[in-house]
Amino acid sequence: MKRITLALTLMLFAAFQLASAKTKVSIDRVEPAFWWAGMEHPELQLLIHGKEISNLTPSLSYEGVQLDQTIKVENANYLFLILKISDDVKAGSFPIEFKQKGKVVFTYNYELKERRENSAGRQGFSNKDVMYLITPDRFANGVPENDTVDGLKEAADRSNMSGRHGGDIQGIINNLDYIQDLGFTALWVNPLLENDMEVYSYHGYSTTDYYKIDERFGSNEDYVRLSAEAKKRGIKLIMDQIENHCGLDHWWTKDLPTADWYNYQDLEKKPYSTHQRVSLADPYGTETDRKGHADGWFVDSMPDLNQKNELLANYLIQNSIWWVEFGDLGGIRQDTYSYPDANFMAEWSRRIMLEYPNFNIVGEEWSENPAIVSRWQKGKVNANGYESYLPSLMDFPVQAALKRSLNKEIAPYSNTFNEVYETLAADFLYADPYNLVIFPDNHDTPRFFNQVNENYDLFKMGLMYIYTTRGIPQIFYGTEILMGNVDHPEDHAYIREDMPGGWEGDKANVFKGEGLSKEQEDALYFVKTLTTFRRDTPALHDGKLKQYAPANEIFVMFRFDESTKVMTIFNKNVEDKDVELAHYEESLQGAKSAKNVLTGETYDLSKGTLKVPAMTSLMLVIE
Amino acid sequence: MKRITLALTLMLFAAFQLASAKTKVSIDRVEPAFWWAGMEHPELQLLIHGKEISNLTPSLSYEGVQLDQTIKVENANYLFLILKISDDVKAGSFPIEFKQKGKVVFTYNYELKERRENSAGRQGFSNKDVMYLITPDRFANGVPENDTVDGLKEAADRSNMSGRHGGDIQGIINNLDYIQDLGFTALWVNPLLENDMEVYSYHGYSTTDYYKIDERFGSNEDYVRLSAEAKKRGIKLIMDQIENHCGLDHWWTKDLPTADWYNYQDLEKKPYSTHQRVSLADPYGTETDRKGHADGWFVDSMPDLNQKNELLANYLIQNSIWWVEFGDLGGIRQDTYSYPDANFMAEWSRRIMLEYPNFNIVGEEWSENPAIVSRWQKGKVNANGYESYLPSLMDFPVQAALKRSLNKEIAPYSNTFNEVYETLAADFLYADPYNLVIFPDNHDTPRFFNQVNENYDLFKMGLMYIYTTRGIPQIFYGTEILMGNVDHPEDHAYIREDMPGGWEGDKANVFKGEGLSKEQEDALYFVKTLTTFRRDTPALHDGKLKQYAPANEIFVMFRFDESTKVMTIFNKNVEDKDVELAHYEESLQGAKSAKNVLTGETYDLSKGTLKVPAMTSLMLVIE
Repeated sequence: MKRITLALTLMLFAAFQLASAKTKVSIDRVEPAFWWAGMEHPELQLLIHGKEISNLTPSLSYEGVQLDQTIKVENANYLFLILKISDDVKAGSFPIEFKQKGKVVFTYNYELKERRENSAGRQGFSNKDVMYLITPDRFANGVPENDTVDGLKEAADRSNMSGRHGGDIQGIINNLDYIQDLGFTALWVNPLLENDMEVYSYHGYSTTDYYKIDERFGSNEDYVRLSAEAKKRGIKLIMDQIENHCGLDHWWTKDLPTADWYNYQDLEKKPYSTHQRVSLADPYGTETDRKGHADGWFVDSMPDLNQKNELLANYLIQNSIWWVEFGDLGGIRQDTYSYPDANFMAEWSRRIMLEYPNFNIVGEEWSENPAIVSRWQKGKVNANGYESYLPSLMDFPVQAALKRSLNKEIAPYSNTFNEVYETLAADFLYADPYNLVIFPDNHDTPRFFNQVNENYDLFKMGLMYIYTTRGIPQIFYGTEILMGNVDHPEDHAYIREDMPGGWEGDKANVFKGEGLSKEQEDALYFVKTLTTFRRDTPALHDGKLKQYAPANEIFVMFRFDESTKVMTIFNKNVEDKDVELAHYEESLQGAKSAKNVLTGETYDLSKGTLKVPAMTSLMLVIE
Repeated sequence: MKRITLALTLMLFAAFQLASAKTKVSIDRVEPAFWWAGMEHPELQLLIHGKEISNLTPSLSYEGVQLDQTIKVENANYLFLILKISDDVKAGSFPIEFKQKGKVVFTYNYELKERRENSAGRQGFSNKDVMYLITPDRFANGVPENDTVDGLKEAADRSNMSGRHGGDIQGIINNLDYIQDLGFTALWVNPLLENDMEVYSYHGYSTTDYYKIDERFGSNEDYVRLSAEAKKRGIKLIMDQIENHCGLDHWWTKDLPTADWYNYQDLEKKPYSTHQRVSLADPYGTETDRKGHADGWFVDSMPDLNQKNELLANYLIQNSIWWVEFGDLGGIRQDTYSYPDANFMAEWSRRIMLEYPNFNIVGEEWSENPAIVSRWQKGKVNANGYESYLPSLMDFPVQAALKRSLNKEIAPYSNTFNEVYETLAADFLYADPYNLVIFPDNHDTPRFFNQVNENYDLFKMGLMYIYTTRGIPQIFYGTEILMGNVDHPEDHAYIREDMPGGWEGDKANVFKGEGLSKEQEDALYFVKTLTTFRRDTPALHDGKLKQYAPANEIFVMFRFDESTKVMTIFNKNVEDKDVELAHYEESLQGAKSAKNVLTGETYDLSKGTLKVPAMTSLMLVIE
């Protein structure tokens, strides 16, 4: 069997009905393979692929569905059908017939499925949630049998740090109780779609099939099961999607529909992205630079998709919506948000949010400058008129500032917390800072324990900041047990080390709490207590925030609503400090006592000072 | 004679007419001492100071002038009169009579002067100008006789780096030809108002009389003469003003009008400013921190003025307008713009711009973050609703980025110009970036030659950037001859070293071009050529700007209008580079030749490349 046949879903296979054994016509892909009745957008675009099918004439007959356009492209192996679907169409199936010289040579039975109840009204992740991030190849190996799969190029090899280690969807399902027990309510899993590349495929960012879970992770049905099992536990599933590029070994690379499907389709002459994201915002920017950033390739193995091609644009938008509906998603994380065509990304976000008005999407714009990041958030009035529909962004500016503030050496009169204080003060740049995703680390950054040079005091202060500040906290798997490799802090392969206990025979097992060091056990308690407290405390969701300018290496923040007031105090001095409470009276308003969230200890505030131990942060509920 | 009497202007003295030799009434100050007919704002507030005058009843009679209010304050030695002045009032004098028990005990003859022609329509400095900055004590000593003045505390001592050296207004007047010859069209002189402090008074930022030039610099009339002589040479005079604080030895310190004239009037209990300027913008900021920044004292010797007191607010606003009118100013530079009460500064700017709609004021907000600086510019829509009326700001973000870009070590694939490129790209934050003042150094920063560690190649690149980019270039005196002290680059006293040739007997004389090193002569030629070219080239004033993302340590900018196209190329590589011109075709549009602004050399562009020498920048006129 050829690879392309292997790549088909069985489901798709079953739907094919060759009209005649004599004809040479072969249609191997109809994408999306099915759709739903009752979607908001009235059009559906089908990609049809098969050897020299461009002379076929498609037709259909179903109440509420009209074949509006049949679009041929340069490549005779493609047809694109535009279906108009009425609001009141009933769920059901209907044949699409493809005729040659008046004779039906191929029939595809298209289904408009019934939607789940309240699918359109689904609630996306929000600041009521705390998010856990997993790199699925490295979390837990639930099904060792699928580690290596016939027909997929890269085999498992746990001895290769950059190879596939066998983690899978079942491994995540097996440990959902652990994730729930820690207090998390949202789960972002790095990409699970097929990445059938020769090497370095485990990370998942080289999609080779947009409609198929990689078999080494499981099946499309396993993904739906993951979503359902998570939902049972109050956990929203967030899909990691990539519109900017696909994998070079994507099935269409060898048979591209149009001459402009990829930017720089002539692979020999392709430039790399300049990564000069500011060129898009620059009032003095050039078309040369905007194109240099957006159209250059990310890396050799990832062709840059040309979303200015409307057929591709529609293909990608529908694919994202298909997964929300099919996978019953609670959110999308969008990779490299500023690299695709910016107008396409606006339309992509708009179309998704049109279907799911309460949904959430977080974009990755890896800039430390909030003026650049904020440009992409819905509601921002941009100087160049660019209108975005993206609700959330990853807060890289706070992540970078926090790291620097923690690591800065203290000195007489220094305020090392100034950078994180000043960065948050620039929140006036955002349309909705409370909807940003805040994180100490992720799968691309050094592990947080490494960022603070394995200083456990700084580690705890940093997490305490994340759990206190506005936004949606995100914790990377293993951060709860101080994962991090001192010798390779910058190496992605080591950043994404295997979670201990995810593999049969692992010495330690975090899921069972076995084989952990005292410090790891303490960290696990710390993360669990704060995650749970954050989850259960509305004042930390959308409560107001006040921050006091750092002074003498003391930094204080408040989160509060009408029922609860949380005060977090950071003392970065190497000695204990008696913090003068009068300075915070504007927020304390005469409060007499406070309870330590981590220890349950109660403090008397009426003395006017509160002793905060050296290199410590306290999260207090003011009583 | 008492000090306070000495501090009076003779002019004011002459205006006093004691009604009766027998009365004990003594009025020693009426401020402003005179005003003008035909101003836009219909009110004038007079501060009247004299021993126990609060029981006097003032009255006046003059067509178009009405005594609207007489305001008494806690201190019986003050009266504040509010005069309503009609639009069509005629210039002229009228007596203000002060009565006690019905008898006139004091008469002050108030004058409403005729304004200069088109005073209200005066053109402020703009991007058509190039600005020269002088610290007057350190530029040239025109009148050695006034170096030390009886009755003013600090005497001249040129051997004391932080002492007074004797530079004065006449010294500037004597060298206006030099300034004009270099091409400058605007002149910012550090403060010249009286600073009668015991020590460290030369810098001028401790005002002890808002209506009087320090006698060690000259007289009010000398100041008007400086303005007139500058104007003759096409140079606009810019006054350095300070609303935030005065000098501790200001005459009113010992007899403050109200209990709230200064913030923290109890000098023993005063806090210092926290300098946490972001607290004003912070959506999570506290009143505690806003007050901490704005109301704390700048330093011990500079009381923080409380501009929330409306009498003081009006006093300061009128004083600024008085100097525009009296000194025939072409602009104001406002010190520490974010430190006074922010609403006051908005009103201060609004009132001045109301009187002079084409005027310009540049504020100092020493932040490297354009999101913070831009909040203060007129036209900016601020998230917290703050509306500013300040037209221009000092571009500290570009200054800091330029310094870092120049000093960053190059490495394989590095783009050390990225920081300055990215900073300028953030200009979308500003309402009017073309009206920012751009500068490599000033009286508070290390000398530019020191900033680049005395690397003359980097020095020239930095200045070339300043002369190319948008805004209003400002050059600090002595930068044109590479002034800078290697051993004390951060020490204000050394930053403001004496200009060679400004004092009798100086070994070198920059004004005569004597005793300069070859490198200094070259720098002088460089500055003169570029200043003159900038002055004479509208494309560099308000022409459009394009910048190309730095790559391989090559950075290219264009300025252009319909008649002229200027291209500046920076090559920071340590070897010559053949720059590929095709990359800039979007701007070059087939241009065939270019002329080097500094050398006059013509280059053939039709070959497709242009050789740029190592560590060099070229400014080219495209032909």
